[in-house]
Amino acid sequence: MPSPTIRILGIDPGLNRTGYGVVEITGSKLGYIAAGVIRVPAGDLHQRLGTILRSLAAVIRETQPQVATIEKVFVNVNPQSTLLLGQARGAAICAAVTEGLVVHEYAALRIKQAVVGFGQADKRQVQLMVQRLLSLDSAPGSDAADALACAICHAHSASLLIALKSQDHVTARARSSSSGRRAWTARLQGIE
Amino acid sequence: MPSPTIRILGIDPGLNRTGYGVVEITGSKLGYIAAGVIRVPAGDLHQRLGTILRSLAAVIRETQPQVATIEKVFVNVNPQSTLLLGQARGAAICAAVTEGLVVHEYAALRIKQAVVGFGQADKRQVQLMVQRLLSLDSAPGSDAADALACAICHAHSASLLIALKSQDHVTARARSSSSGRRAWTARLQGIE
Repeated sequence: MPSPTIRILGIDPGLNRTGYGVVEITGSKLGYIAAGVIRVPAGDLHQRLGTILRSLAAVIRETQPQVATIEKVFVNVNPQSTLLLGQARGAAICAAVTEGLVVHEYAALRIKQAVVGFGQADKRQVQLMVQRLLSLDSAPGSDAADALACAICHAHSASLLIALKSQDHVTARARSSSSGRRAWTARLQGIE
Repeated sequence: MPSPTIRILGIDPGLNRTGYGVVEITGSKLGYIAAGVIRVPAGDLHQRLGTILRSLAAVIRETQPQVATIEKVFVNVNPQSTLLLGQARGAAICAAVTEGLVVHEYAALRIKQAVVGFGQADKRQVQLMVQRLLSLDSAPGSDAADALACAICHAHSASLLIALKSQDHVTARARSSSSGRRAWTARLQGIE
């Protein structure tokens, strides 16, 4: 049975700049699909949120990811900034929801561990590791790199999950051939 | 020329409960259209924001307001609450934007001044004044009352604006008849 492919959108939301990145994982093979930044012009709040909502929905329709991921927010900044970021984050999540995607959240620490190998990595290290993992010609910009890193973090989790399920499947098949419980095997294949 | 009618949506966003209220103003006459609360079931963040987005969009399609209003947020609470409120607020504003509405923001102080007459009014006073101003049989619940109060605040501003424009229009007509500048009058009528 060939490994399933999962296409993942990563989002790095912000009211001025919202980064996005799309990767694909097939077995343990990671591929780059797209990345960029939505630059939000100055304007009234509803106009700015509308730009994030519409632009990100357009990216989703174009790149067709099956799942979305977003970084859990660090709120230890001034309250007004937290509120603005929260609103931008709300608009970004709404874009994913509107396009029918489930949104997974990952803490920054976990994303850096997954991509660079340690949680205290700086922005430049994230950019370079994203470039290496996706075999890109140059390092992506900071917003796009953060979005790609979030998607890669989920890809690693998804990849692990698939591997574990395959393991279950092999075990189930072994049991099935010895005990004849084929229905259970079929259910596991369905999950895969 | 009959006074124009403006239908206004007020939103009181929250991740657990989002209040909404729709009023209509014709000249200085205020009318009640609808109000209620969107109760958001527990679940993942993207599911909860999706509920706010879709439910509020449905209210807008049903009640057909021409403009939306939302209270400016008081951020002096704990950062996590500010973030959650910000995201709910982002989703609510996205619902309005999706349905083509401009969103005006008013500070709580200004809303209470417009509805009760002083900025330090408590929730119960807001509920009772909203009931009186809209000639309702009973006081609306707190979330719906806050949303209606926000809409009423905009109605008062809009009413004032219309009155000022009418004043300009009368002045313009007086000037026009004396100076023959009819084009300017026509332009003002167009604005009304």
